Amino acid sequence: MILSALLTSVGINLGLCFIFFTLYSILRKQPCNLIVYAPRLVSERKREEGGQSNLERLLATTDWVRNAWETSEEEFLSTAGLNAFVFMRIFVFSFKIFTFGGIVGLLILLPINCMGSQLRDNSDFQNKSLDSFSISNVNNGSNRLWIHFCAAYVFTGVVCILLYYEYEYISSKRIACFYSSKHEPHHFSILVRGIPVPVGSNCTDIVEQFFQEYHPSTYHSHEVVRRSSKLQILITDAERLYKRLTHLKNKDNTPQRQRRDGCLGLFGHKVDMLDHYEKTLGDIADNVRIEQCSLAGKEVPAAFVTFKSRFGAAIALNIQESVNPTHWITEQAPEPQDVYWPFFSVTFIRRWISKLVAFVACNVLTMLFLIPVALVQGLTHLDQLETMFPALKNILRMAVVSQVITGYLPILILQMFLSVVPPIMIMLSSLQGYISWSQIQKSACTKVLWFTIWNIFFANVLSGSAFYRLTVFLEPKEFPRVLAEAVPAQASFFIAYVVTFGWTNIASELFQLIPLLYNYIKVIFYGDGDTDDFEAPSIPYHSEIPRILFFDLLGVTYFILAPLILPFLLVYFCLGYIIYRNQLLNVYVAKYHTGGEFWPTVHNYTIFSLILMHIIVIGIFGQKQLPLASALILPLPIFTLLFNEYCRKRFLPIFKSYPMECLIKKDREDQNDPNMSEFYDKLASAYNDPALMPIKYSGRCCNSPWLPLLNNSRV
Amino acid sequence: MILSALLTSVGINLGLCFIFFTLYSILRKQPCNLIVYAPRLVSERKREEGGQSNLERLLATTDWVRNAWETSEEEFLSTAGLNAFVFMRIFVFSFKIFTFGGIVGLLILLPINCMGSQLRDNSDFQNKSLDSFSISNVNNGSNRLWIHFCAAYVFTGVVCILLYYEYEYISSKRIACFYSSKHEPHHFSILVRGIPVPVGSNCTDIVEQFFQEYHPSTYHSHEVVRRSSKLQILITDAERLYKRLTHLKNKDNTPQRQRRDGCLGLFGHKVDMLDHYEKTLGDIADNVRIEQCSLAGKEVPAAFVTFKSRFGAAIALNIQESVNPTHWITEQAPEPQDVYWPFFSVTFIRRWISKLVAFVACNVLTMLFLIPVALVQGLTHLDQLETMFPALKNILRMAVVSQVITGYLPILILQMFLSVVPPIMIMLSSLQGYISWSQIQKSACTKVLWFTIWNIFFANVLSGSAFYRLTVFLEPKEFPRVLAEAVPAQASFFIAYVVTFGWTNIASELFQLIPLLYNYIKVIFYGDGDTDDFEAPSIPYHSEIPRILFFDLLGVTYFILAPLILPFLLVYFCLGYIIYRNQLLNVYVAKYHTGGEFWPTVHNYTIFSLILMHIIVIGIFGQKQLPLASALILPLPIFTLLFNEYCRKRFLPIFKSYPMECLIKKDREDQNDPNMSEFYDKLASAYNDPALMPIKYSGRCCNSPWLPLLNNSRV
Repeated sequence: MILSALLTSVGINLGLCFIFFTLYSILRKQPCNLIVYAPRLVSERKREEGGQSNLERLLATTDWVRNAWETSEEEFLSTAGLNAFVFMRIFVFSFKIFTFGGIVGLLILLPINCMGSQLRDNSDFQNKSLDSFSISNVNNGSNRLWIHFCAAYVFTGVVCILLYYEYEYISSKRIACFYSSKHEPHHFSILVRGIPVPVGSNCTDIVEQFFQEYHPSTYHSHEVVRRSSKLQILITDAERLYKRLTHLKNKDNTPQRQRRDGCLGLFGHKVDMLDHYEKTLGDIADNVRIEQCSLAGKEVPAAFVTFKSRFGAAIALNIQESVNPTHWITEQAPEPQDVYWPFFSVTFIRRWISKLVAFVACNVLTMLFLIPVALVQGLTHLDQLETMFPALKNILRMAVVSQVITGYLPILILQMFLSVVPPIMIMLSSLQGYISWSQIQKSACTKVLWFTIWNIFFANVLSGSAFYRLTVFLEPKEFPRVLAEAVPAQASFFIAYVVTFGWTNIASELFQLIPLLYNYIKVIFYGDGDTDDFEAPSIPYHSEIPRILFFDLLGVTYFILAPLILPFLLVYFCLGYIIYRNQLLNVYVAKYHTGGEFWPTVHNYTIFSLILMHIIVIGIFGQKQLPLASALILPLPIFTLLFNEYCRKRFLPIFKSYPMECLIKKDREDQNDPNMSEFYDKLASAYNDPALMPIKYSGRCCNSPWLPLLNNSRV
Repeated sequence: MILSALLTSVGINLGLCFIFFTLYSILRKQPCNLIVYAPRLVSERKREEGGQSNLERLLATTDWVRNAWETSEEEFLSTAGLNAFVFMRIFVFSFKIFTFGGIVGLLILLPINCMGSQLRDNSDFQNKSLDSFSISNVNNGSNRLWIHFCAAYVFTGVVCILLYYEYEYISSKRIACFYSSKHEPHHFSILVRGIPVPVGSNCTDIVEQFFQEYHPSTYHSHEVVRRSSKLQILITDAERLYKRLTHLKNKDNTPQRQRRDGCLGLFGHKVDMLDHYEKTLGDIADNVRIEQCSLAGKEVPAAFVTFKSRFGAAIALNIQESVNPTHWITEQAPEPQDVYWPFFSVTFIRRWISKLVAFVACNVLTMLFLIPVALVQGLTHLDQLETMFPALKNILRMAVVSQVITGYLPILILQMFLSVVPPIMIMLSSLQGYISWSQIQKSACTKVLWFTIWNIFFANVLSGSAFYRLTVFLEPKEFPRVLAEAVPAQASFFIAYVVTFGWTNIASELFQLIPLLYNYIKVIFYGDGDTDDFEAPSIPYHSEIPRILFFDLLGVTYFILAPLILPFLLVYFCLGYIIYRNQLLNVYVAKYHTGGEFWPTVHNYTIFSLILMHIIVIGIFGQKQLPLASALILPLPIFTLLFNEYCRKRFLPIFKSYPMECLIKKDREDQNDPNMSEFYDKLASAYNDPALMPIKYSGRCCNSPWLPLLNNSRV
């Protein structure tokens, strides 16, 4: 790629971003788009509508940027939660390291690279290849490479120091959040699995007996888990029917209520839908009654056990309970709304097999993803298309069309395939036996991360001969050499990737095209939506974090090789900071509060990026005939790994569970709290299965014919 | 090797064993050898001397075999402890698996191997090569190999089942031992490290304050660790001097008490040694006083904290104490007599560096051990020796001498080098920061295990071109093929190894040649030894377990390849069972009771042996042109690893710490025990540094001039 092409691309993408921002600034002010651009405020009923004249509504203003920027840290933390706060720290941290990297890279490394003459690129400035700005241009054996060597050391040092302070800062925030939290049921609860239930007795009695025996002073209550998936399906059906019923009743439009009862509503007798729905609802209620009677026998040998104090729960959690370690296995209970109930419905063996299947499937998908993509992409070759659609021959031979098809279609197909990966990973993670949504999302996040590294970084770097070169992973010695050859060659591709994919992604995150279109379609076809039982979305950390961290990886690995990438990354992180802050304040709602448990993943990933950078640099120095530098880099990955080991010891335990000091302090505060007895009452029912609880339709459900039945179904 | 040579070797070694046994049977009855053959009984004052006529003393009897055999399990357990019991279970377990393996191998696999004609060995039975009995002789592509295939599956299954039941049995014994134990201080104590001591305060107050604050109901007392290495050296000096002094006083032989005070006692004035020693002892006492004054300032930020109940100690042990996880790090306290005090004397950074150095040194030693051995062995080549010692030319050219030198000298040198490995590994482990002797020995045991696998198994298998073939470990794909070529070729070597090294080792263990000689020398030169402060030896698990397990590895890996090895192994394990049982009852004393913590190592090692066997078998089937069998073996290592994973979950936690159920049951028993207050008094001083305690010389020390000073030195 030449410099002028890059500048054109930058211009086009900046223009696109500008258009997106302007459109957003205008569209967000339209009341009908509130549900798209401020669903959080809508669901919290905080948005004051009106107050703006029609003219003001049509002007693009930047007040949203100011709002996002000016929100204080405390305010942001209390609104969006610690997880969102940690998410934003990724931008802050990346901005810090790449500001430093950018200064060193652009002021020191870039001039040195340009001064080299290895590539003999004598074209004028505009037509200069981007490779002239990379380390490939430095002459072999040149002593100037020692400056790159020093830069590797200094950059690694700075990143490690910043990582340390960031980890420390987030740990302190996590502890502070714990201290400032109200009584949270999950702090007082654990999940016990593998309860040994002898034949003839029931789980409830066994649990009661065990904890009364061994934790008499701290045990509070327990809730045995039941296999309720069938009931859950029935209730979902009932809910859907009930919605339709109320919709129909509200319309009160008799012709629309008539429908044929045969195939697809096209044949058979005409029936009144209201009567029909009510009858079906009655049937479901009967089924619920039957299901409910058989529920007592469907106990799963697992229970949520609650304690009178946080310390009591921690004791039961941390000490092996039974002589047989596969019995009475304890686990920290997730927040009640975060529990993944379907997980409890399957048997132990099925769960074990699912886990194995998920593991294998995830690895196979990650390793072999590119094969189907390459096959489908192969179909987009012009000659293939001409054979498949002979009629289009003339059109396909037009220069513009052929350029679009060969240039964009393969990338479009790759992106389409990539977009289905996060949901697949979520599905695989949910098979793996996690007991909460937060854990599923965290696990999916790690899976998507490795998927991205493999299928975007390595697949592009070892491109063309990817499958041939796969053997490099079986020959660890060859690894630095192969990477040193392949990585710098892809520098211009990844610079273009940052500018096109990175910037556009950020802009489209703000613009929310799909929800916007969906909202317009809904308004046009169904009339103005009812926002009463509308639910604001939560941010999909498992797809967003890997996407952002991938840019971190690019920055860290290319800092030495092609520092030209850094200013584009800095723009990305600046835009990202403002836009995600805006989105987290207005769009997304936190579905769970795990206290920033994503940070260790970010930390580990950054360490991985550093090590990858070191391996590449070792290869580069070998290739540039500077074997001494190559050898002297070796201590760097070792020190980095030792630093990581220290951080694991120093900070990771804080993210696993809360230390005794905090637990006891919080418990002592509670002793004087008059609300405790009220909280204990709530605690006893905090972990009831939602399938067994009465369903609330924003307080309007009392006239439902089947709900009284369900109200009794709490066992 | 041909069959007749093997039979000769068996005959010679059986003869050697018989001679050793006969000699042992006679020598053990001589009163002067009591200290060699029954030191345990001597130190426990259980041995009734006399009662045997002179004639009986000269007859070789087998009563020791009967005694060892007839001792019941309970009696053995109570005498020798659980660790010794677990050690004996290695023999029982090995005997079980190789009995099964032997039946399958000799009755099914061996005839099949003999029926093959791959090696075209048409010599008569006596001159048949041992290779004709191995899998190498089965014809390529023969369907008979499917019987070997089935044998691999069945044998793995049987070994896994036996492993499971053995693990279960030992776990239950461990729990039973815990229930039957008296009040043990280490059950009530933890070691706390990383105590944050602010400037101006002292560690004792900080510990007291912290545990009073967070464990008010269970905290009992604590003992801060002090840097006492200098004091320890002084006390050792004093002890040595005191021994000499009493020796001199007892002799009361004035001429012997005179000695010159100059170099080596040969020059200078004549002095009375009694006066001289007393003066030196006085000087040391002064030094002790000075050292003792400065000891208060030498607090290490570590303390042994004792609790009123086992459960209390477990709570403090298992829950992270402080917000900063590098502070207040807790660890299970070892038994008081098991604490490795020198460990506390070094600073954190020095310990950390030592750990790294030990790790690197251990790996380097293991990997490169063969180089110096090969170099030294190279010197034993006849031509080299002739150049070095020209005078011996004629002697060296004699057939017998040259055979002995070329045949035995290299092996002797290897064995000499090998015999220094366990002490080196103990030294490296003690550098690694373990707080007890038991942990050091356990860690050294693992190190010696890997060392043995690498330097005896792999070095012999990949012999000759070992260093060239090392690259195989960098190409995992080639691994099965290389092993399949190399391992069967060494079958006859390893059969000879079992017969010569295995059997002789066992016999010499019984005969205790070196202690016997040492005892004779002592008796001859110093007169009859004083057995009063004599200490019985403890069994060096770190060198014995790897030696025995190596034969397990040989049996498992060669079961399919060359089943002829199994009967020799069975003889080894039978002999070993009787002999080690005898030794553990009469010779060795248990220095610590860690409750059979060696078993997980044995279990893991057996799993490793199985996996190695599978890899070799995969290679063999590939080589024998049966790729389907090769592929169908693949699930076997996977299932074995899954089985291992299950065992880790099911049993390993029991070996890490005692479950709450047991702790609370034992604590409740104590509540009604009238001896508890007495025990609590002892508990407070259980973890005093021995350097700070008054020294006892079997109750005869009161007249020592320096001891009153030391008595006051307990701070």
